[in-house]
Amino acid sequence: MDFQLAIIGGGPAGYSAAEAAGKAGLKVVLFEKNALGGVCLNEGCIPTKTLLYSAKVFDGARNASKYAVKADNVSFDVGKIVSRKQKVVRKLVLGIKNKMSESGVTVVAGEAYIQDKNTIKCGDEIYKCDNLIICTGSKTFVPPISGIENVDYWTHREALDCKELPDSLVIIGGGVIGMEFASYFCSLGVKVSVIEMTPEILGGMDKELSSLLRAEYSKKGISFMLNTKVTKVCKDDAGKVNIYYTSGDNEDCIISDKVLLSVGRHPVTEGLGLENLSLSFNKQHKIMVDVNMKTSLDGVYACGDITGTSMLAHTAVREAEVAVHHICGTSDTMNYKAIPGVVYTNPEIASVGITEEMAKLAGVEYNVDKLPMAYAGRFVAENEGINGVCKIISDSDGKILGAHILGNPASELIVIAGIMIEEGKKIDDFKKYVFPHPTVGEIFREF
Amino acid sequence: MDFQLAIIGGGPAGYSAAEAAGKAGLKVVLFEKNALGGVCLNEGCIPTKTLLYSAKVFDGARNASKYAVKADNVSFDVGKIVSRKQKVVRKLVLGIKNKMSESGVTVVAGEAYIQDKNTIKCGDEIYKCDNLIICTGSKTFVPPISGIENVDYWTHREALDCKELPDSLVIIGGGVIGMEFASYFCSLGVKVSVIEMTPEILGGMDKELSSLLRAEYSKKGISFMLNTKVTKVCKDDAGKVNIYYTSGDNEDCIISDKVLLSVGRHPVTEGLGLENLSLSFNKQHKIMVDVNMKTSLDGVYACGDITGTSMLAHTAVREAEVAVHHICGTSDTMNYKAIPGVVYTNPEIASVGITEEMAKLAGVEYNVDKLPMAYAGRFVAENEGINGVCKIISDSDGKILGAHILGNPASELIVIAGIMIEEGKKIDDFKKYVFPHPTVGEIFREF
Repeated sequence: MDFQLAIIGGGPAGYSAAEAAGKAGLKVVLFEKNALGGVCLNEGCIPTKTLLYSAKVFDGARNASKYAVKADNVSFDVGKIVSRKQKVVRKLVLGIKNKMSESGVTVVAGEAYIQDKNTIKCGDEIYKCDNLIICTGSKTFVPPISGIENVDYWTHREALDCKELPDSLVIIGGGVIGMEFASYFCSLGVKVSVIEMTPEILGGMDKELSSLLRAEYSKKGISFMLNTKVTKVCKDDAGKVNIYYTSGDNEDCIISDKVLLSVGRHPVTEGLGLENLSLSFNKQHKIMVDVNMKTSLDGVYACGDITGTSMLAHTAVREAEVAVHHICGTSDTMNYKAIPGVVYTNPEIASVGITEEMAKLAGVEYNVDKLPMAYAGRFVAENEGINGVCKIISDSDGKILGAHILGNPASELIVIAGIMIEEGKKIDDFKKYVFPHPTVGEIFREF
Repeated sequence: MDFQLAIIGGGPAGYSAAEAAGKAGLKVVLFEKNALGGVCLNEGCIPTKTLLYSAKVFDGARNASKYAVKADNVSFDVGKIVSRKQKVVRKLVLGIKNKMSESGVTVVAGEAYIQDKNTIKCGDEIYKCDNLIICTGSKTFVPPISGIENVDYWTHREALDCKELPDSLVIIGGGVIGMEFASYFCSLGVKVSVIEMTPEILGGMDKELSSLLRAEYSKKGISFMLNTKVTKVCKDDAGKVNIYYTSGDNEDCIISDKVLLSVGRHPVTEGLGLENLSLSFNKQHKIMVDVNMKTSLDGVYACGDITGTSMLAHTAVREAEVAVHHICGTSDTMNYKAIPGVVYTNPEIASVGITEEMAKLAGVEYNVDKLPMAYAGRFVAENEGINGVCKIISDSDGKILGAHILGNPASELIVIAGIMIEEGKKIDDFKKYVFPHPTVGEIFREF
């Protein structure tokens, strides 16, 4: 069977590329070995947000008295929370299936193998293609901790489907995934400890905001162990996990019902015949792509987590669109200067562009402007007893380089700053737009 | 006392102008006869949103089971809801006071009287000014309904402070204010009826979305009487209000505990000595202003509701900034093509730019694109059993002319479309920006 475009991997990059190419009139085949939607939809972004929303509703009802509302015996049913999550996922997977058929995309369920850049084998079938987009995504990285293979550890996958809550949970890795699960399980009453190897949670996010969020969650009962490295894990006779760690000169052990690994994700590059393409890799062993997402081979593109660049679903989507544009001859290039990052804790933290830390590291001159979120009247109306911060990094001309928000609904607001960065706007330019009053987004006009 | 700028009215236009001018180094005096913040902060936008948020928390707790959360005996304390509202208002008024002193603005509590364009009298004091911004706002319009003077009717002011809920409430006027109060009192269990003279609620909003919202609130128990004109009101022996109305050929009467008037607002132009300025008025008897918000007199500006143009706080803020820019010699002009409008019902409805109805009326060629909000995965995750719509109006080149959203958090998202309209962007341009996934705002990228 001949196609103009073959896509390996049906996650955000794959389905977005397929839809865009199909709509542009290309004959497209999409290979997916598990479920359409990929990790993001089936066991990542969407399921976590669904669980977290139930936790938010639970927290909302428990804290209703702050808004003069009373509710007794607030409780949850974790089995039902998980079932609802599955229902939401099913609905959205169906939505993607529909999009694929509306766009005339041939979807093949199975593991694709690249024989050469124009030949893909799946099952017994051979598919010929003019162009190829490789977007097989990433998988959980299991760190080489001594004893880990003998412990019944969780990855995000098991955590998402947990229908019987442990009393205690140790999360190894305080990045975005770790913190979202920490937030979820903490809301549901699990005693959560987060072990993070670096001095602060949330990796590349603004350090000050991350530290404020950490303080918030410390108050809620999460214990954070920073600068801490897990050295060994084992199961004790009571069936509990013993997690040995070092922190500075200290060595100690924490005992927990469960342990969740969230130290990072690695590109999926094996088993798909990548070796049959003589692709160039960069120093970090990542597939080299240009601004059009094209690899070193004409007609072969790589998008999404497999490139190891951003590891975010929305980056993958944009990369996929850029690749399809290049295939179709439409001028478009990828840039990473305004990729938002969000942590769906409660409150949320969101970021776009550079952080102070990045500016310092790059030796760039920069200004920091910072406002409490309470400058936005609506934030005060809807966040009783809760503080937040909005921080903008700009250059000496006032051009916006980065924006960072702690406070709901940061996730929905950050794109406003992203658009400004993408368009090369200055801080004063926010004032040229009329933001509805009262909204939390008005905070940007206050700078 | 000599000032470079005198401002009459301390609402959003007044305090924004004062802050901007003060920061620009002008010597500024601001006159306010009631409370800083004006109607918007003291008895408008902010208090309604605070009440509505309590109602939303109450609804959230009552409907928690949709998200597998259980809460018994969910109740509210309307007295406390109102007290919290007052606390929020006090906090924000204080914030504005602080901004005024930080900006070096002289705030005068009292009623200002214009003797001539350079001379303002307040109390016994005379203030000389080089420039004058008049922004006295608007007041509730009490329609000439027969018998209205004998009925103990509510305006927004009494409704905001209601600590004893009536069993039934008739709201005359189904515009934004009417619908926000309808939403609030309906959530709190009051039997609400809305009488609207025109064929649809929410005036200038998109008719289709307004009708969907109406259907939603009909399900919640509000009864809507469209195309209905109130002819007479009186109090009966039981102390109830009898509201007589005509609808087509029908005449009838509805009996209610309380009646709330929300048929519109009129500019405040009396008692301030406007007659001492020979200002030009337009055919609608509104003060004529140019694109710099300057009246027919050099050095005299009018901003906000007094101009009768948009009657929205955020428009007033922008107008005030434009006026101050003109005074300071900074190039800037006012335009109204991207002024958002929001109704803070639950779900919210928000709008920016033109509606289909406006396009038709203007005889402009236009396209309509429409998507269910369920195209955004996060909307599905957080809105169990709730539908929404996003609608974009564009010209034949795809340039965005208007956007309309029914679904939370429409209020926070609409500015994204506003920025696009202001910048002359096309629908396809949404795809150039990376929206974080999953967010409701991603809906814009789906077009």
